[in-house]
Amino acid sequence: MSTILITGSSRGLGLELVQQFAALLPENGLIIAAARNTTPALEEVIAREKGRVAFVALDITDEASVVRSAEEVRGVLGGDRKLEILVNCAGVIGETQEKAGSSADLDFTLSVNVTGTHNVTRSYLPLMQGAPVKKVMNISSQYGSMARARANDYAKLPAYKVSKAALNALTVQYALSYEADGFVFMAVHPGWLQTDMGGSGADLTVSQGAKAVLEVIVAVDEKSNGTFKNIHVESSEIYRGEEIPW
Amino acid sequence: MSTILITGSSRGLGLELVQQFAALLPENGLIIAAARNTTPALEEVIAREKGRVAFVALDITDEASVVRSAEEVRGVLGGDRKLEILVNCAGVIGETQEKAGSSADLDFTLSVNVTGTHNVTRSYLPLMQGAPVKKVMNISSQYGSMARARANDYAKLPAYKVSKAALNALTVQYALSYEADGFVFMAVHPGWLQTDMGGSGADLTVSQGAKAVLEVIVAVDEKSNGTFKNIHVESSEIYRGEEIPW
Repeated sequence: MSTILITGSSRGLGLELVQQFAALLPENGLIIAAARNTTPALEEVIAREKGRVAFVALDITDEASVVRSAEEVRGVLGGDRKLEILVNCAGVIGETQEKAGSSADLDFTLSVNVTGTHNVTRSYLPLMQGAPVKKVMNISSQYGSMARARANDYAKLPAYKVSKAALNALTVQYALSYEADGFVFMAVHPGWLQTDMGGSGADLTVSQGAKAVLEVIVAVDEKSNGTFKNIHVESSEIYRGEEIPW
Repeated sequence: MSTILITGSSRGLGLELVQQFAALLPENGLIIAAARNTTPALEEVIAREKGRVAFVALDITDEASVVRSAEEVRGVLGGDRKLEILVNCAGVIGETQEKAGSSADLDFTLSVNVTGTHNVTRSYLPLMQGAPVKKVMNISSQYGSMARARANDYAKLPAYKVSKAALNALTVQYALSYEADGFVFMAVHPGWLQTDMGGSGADLTVSQGAKAVLEVIVAVDEKSNGTFKNIHVESSEIYRGEEIPW
């Protein structure tokens, strides 16, 4: 395991995953941090890692940007190197709305969280063909679980929830389409994290969440293909590493 | 039960539902057939039913058309009458694609089947407030079931499947948002029907499918709110009226 690309990597969970993978990967490892723009925090990581972390500009809402970024990633990988792990972390949370009918942002939320992830995945798949390990990890949310919808009704995020259910369904479609080629696709609930998205009252620090997601990514194998899993956090009753019902 | 609006009613399942509801509803019943355009077949039904079936122009892909149509429906209902049943039947099937990554129509399929249905529902809800019965039936598909994805993998319709999973999630969000107001929202699998969409090799005639969907609509009560059900067809092993797993 030596090459990984993480979208949404300028802050929050994505940025923390970049740092933790930089610490984990071998000396010749390559972490590609994709985001609309760099941030001072990401620039710092890039400078510290001396060539092991590369930035690639990517706006997942813009199909032309996605295609351009894939070419740039090809250049960063160089001649023979393949991409082994793709972490689709970029996404939006949508507006809080008391009722489903008030939601004016469904189309946008779907276009970013579902179509955006789809466009990145289909553009980057050719860069993974031939790699010894081929893992695509979609950062989903247990809010996307229809089975848990009533328990999650306190969180007034209808568009976000629908988009994450759709992302899970997309993950399943990819899982079935490419399992014969040795790919593994998985959706993971990263926990409720103290990011800009999650707010300061969240359950886990960004570092705890990224550590747990990293453990899922490392452990995932063909038996996990097409599944939707919670992270596992030691002695937590909320994050038990279980398969989350659709 | 005396007022119903059916989208996608110019042909296929929608048109057949218009005819079967015209036969079922009382003399003063009103069936509103919404579609982009009328067709000779729909015109014939409208003429035959002498004022009991009204056409309203509706393009669910165009938000302005949706808003205009809601005003038109308000006019058709007249002063005190409320809409009791909304059947969201309009939708697209998307392109057949061997693999998920080949799908170029995901954004469009989501925008019609999910956002289009959402825009119709939220625009028409005010027309239902105060009705004695308030049922919203979303025509989904068992292809949207993630639990059944492997069994359904023979059908190469990744975008359609993702859109129907998202439609199911949307149905659940509406169900929770409006159950205190007496609404019932349900997703139903109408069977594989011999429509333009389903093709001539399908399991059931359009008439059989519409009859079974009509029976679900009539029977649905608050216990069904937020569920996803198969139709029931006498002595069929495929259409057993069961709840379909997400």
